[in-house]
Amino acid sequence: MEGDPPLQLRIFDLNCWAIRYLSKRRQERMGLIGDALRRDGFDLVLLQEVWSEQDYSELKSKLASCYPFSHYFRSGVIGSGLCVFSRFPILDTLLYQYSLNGYPYMLQHGDWFCGKSVGLVRGGHSCFAPHFPQLHAEYCREKDAYLPHRLVQAWELAQFIRHTSKAADVVLLGGDLNMHPEDVGIRLLRGWTGLRDAFAEASRFQGCENGCTLVPKNCFTLKTELLPFPLGIRIDYVLYKAVSSFTVKCEELKTTTGTAPGADIPFSDHEAVMATLHIQRQGQAAGATPDTAEPTLADVVTEARTEVDVGLRAARRQRYSRGRMAVLALLLLLVQAAAALGALAGLAPEQPFPKLSFSLLAFLAVGVLLLATGLHLFHTMEVKMLQGTEEQLRMALRALQERP
Amino acid sequence: MEGDPPLQLRIFDLNCWAIRYLSKRRQERMGLIGDALRRDGFDLVLLQEVWSEQDYSELKSKLASCYPFSHYFRSGVIGSGLCVFSRFPILDTLLYQYSLNGYPYMLQHGDWFCGKSVGLVRGGHSCFAPHFPQLHAEYCREKDAYLPHRLVQAWELAQFIRHTSKAADVVLLGGDLNMHPEDVGIRLLRGWTGLRDAFAEASRFQGCENGCTLVPKNCFTLKTELLPFPLGIRIDYVLYKAVSSFTVKCEELKTTTGTAPGADIPFSDHEAVMATLHIQRQGQAAGATPDTAEPTLADVVTEARTEVDVGLRAARRQRYSRGRMAVLALLLLLVQAAAALGALAGLAPEQPFPKLSFSLLAFLAVGVLLLATGLHLFHTMEVKMLQGTEEQLRMALRALQERP
Repeated sequence: MEGDPPLQLRIFDLNCWAIRYLSKRRQERMGLIGDALRRDGFDLVLLQEVWSEQDYSELKSKLASCYPFSHYFRSGVIGSGLCVFSRFPILDTLLYQYSLNGYPYMLQHGDWFCGKSVGLVRGGHSCFAPHFPQLHAEYCREKDAYLPHRLVQAWELAQFIRHTSKAADVVLLGGDLNMHPEDVGIRLLRGWTGLRDAFAEASRFQGCENGCTLVPKNCFTLKTELLPFPLGIRIDYVLYKAVSSFTVKCEELKTTTGTAPGADIPFSDHEAVMATLHIQRQGQAAGATPDTAEPTLADVVTEARTEVDVGLRAARRQRYSRGRMAVLALLLLLVQAAAALGALAGLAPEQPFPKLSFSLLAFLAVGVLLLATGLHLFHTMEVKMLQGTEEQLRMALRALQERP
Repeated sequence: MEGDPPLQLRIFDLNCWAIRYLSKRRQERMGLIGDALRRDGFDLVLLQEVWSEQDYSELKSKLASCYPFSHYFRSGVIGSGLCVFSRFPILDTLLYQYSLNGYPYMLQHGDWFCGKSVGLVRGGHSCFAPHFPQLHAEYCREKDAYLPHRLVQAWELAQFIRHTSKAADVVLLGGDLNMHPEDVGIRLLRGWTGLRDAFAEASRFQGCENGCTLVPKNCFTLKTELLPFPLGIRIDYVLYKAVSSFTVKCEELKTTTGTAPGADIPFSDHEAVMATLHIQRQGQAAGATPDTAEPTLADVVTEARTEVDVGLRAARRQRYSRGRMAVLALLLLLVQAAAALGALAGLAPEQPFPKLSFSLLAFLAVGVLLLATGLHLFHTMEVKMLQGTEEQLRMALRALQERP
């Protein structure tokens, strides 16, 4: 990029909500998305929730002429749902799967099965490092059981960006963070990485009020979820920073507004975010400019630690109660075994229970034992990861406080 | 580090084999390790298989005066077992858990439960990026069912190092790679990252013949496993490279030789590896010097792809057979349900089976259904990760072939 004229980079980011058999009018919408992308010729397209590889393949062949480079990230049982299309060559990719992502037994909130991750792509003269994450969804804002998990993810995302972007000229992040702009997770992510919010920085903005990306006027959104937010909420972001001797400015930010341009249905239940960035080399190194002053950042880290701590205590309680359940089931099995052996050895004149109930009870005990042991192991893992994050946050806090 | 005199860096690396209740004479050995570390004053100590946090805490308090900085990485059910002690401040840490790590049902090979990972630490004037990984163990060299998983790990490790070390001056790797020096995984890792092998480069070497770290004369090693290798095998490594304007040389490499210095038992079933590196700033940027010429590297990548492909086919077979088993169990349940309903509705004159066998069979079917479904999901995930790696290797190969 050295000596090049200023570069204008047009980015398209969308959570496509493309779950086979479950998402409404999926194929029609994927078709619309493909048409729009082909028509508008962005430089970089970051898509989330493209759960079906077939959808990706169809998009890929449709877009081959205008976006010759693409990548689909695989992870989890269903997949990561992340894919990228680019006008620039993709030189290298890396996927980082968050260590915590909900609970396998919460089948109605399928997050665990998706293997939520952040994808990293290096491309375009090896100067861009676009990350496109998706974080755990929020199902109930008042009683958000997943907040500690989302915070662990936000922290891991921030750490992943810090560690992988040291040699990049420009770092971009586009994705569905499932967090409101004022949430502790997003303040932590922005403060710790120095990423700037395209919506806040854009010279021109056009789209839904307040930059919202989940709006009541979109026919696919759940109206009940948005009741407390009549304008909608903003949970999809384009963030960016220049790392070395570059400057990045957001010239224009746009969102779709409840329907796809020229169509009667939206692309997805989320609105698309389109940013035009202006990238220029400058004389001297810009240096990372953290978005938040450090004393404030220390407060954010402390707040995040408190929330992770709440999650840690809950996870410990779960681990304990599942462990106790497993022990009880084991005891019941042992008592039954003793009774059965006693009956066999002729110590008891006849079996105390009818055979059928006896076997049913034994099977039930085995089932509970297996299930409770599995859950105990799962919550043990959860405790470990929450502890690890808590410790890292403590280390970060110490580093912030010790800095002259 | 700029303008500093040449730096001598002494590294200690050991797989401690410290599994509570299972590893022989664990506490005695951990005590010996602590004593040796305190006595010998290394700069950086990279330990693996410290599964008990209590062992880590004890080491930490014992070593507080000579190694004021330390970190323990948590992951998986049991933990990652990775910890680091350092004379230099630890500024930041990151843990990357491999996406594949054996099978949960192979209880006798507990790898899955350990959450095997690579830990990254930044410290010492923020110029070092020591990585200390542990890869999946090899249980049978002739019929190594875990080779594809280990290759995925080697590839992910190589990618993780490439992406996280771009801004480091010196990259170090010390750990138990569970691979022989000529194995495809280690050739891939070294070729793709440009890391150099301290054993091959050391000016002076002292220790077990051929640098072996699992030797028959160590009283804790399984002699039967080492029968084909009378001298032992080398699976623990110190690798390094200078990224920016530095040079690194290995002045001396040592291994323990079956017993701990001044004791009658070894530190562990593995030998410790101790390297003395000489780090100097040089006038101009050194640039990454890949260890292997590129045509050879392309061959290595091709070889790795072939092996991953073999694993992919096996995983697909497993996924299919588990899925079929689940369907059969479901069919059996449906037939039983139909029979039971028939009997209830009075269609059949009497139940075709005695009640007890009937319920037992139903429970068995439910058990098989659950287990087979779980395994089917697990192998689906395995297929996805192997596919992802295969695709990344293909991309790497293309990049190697296209390079002028």
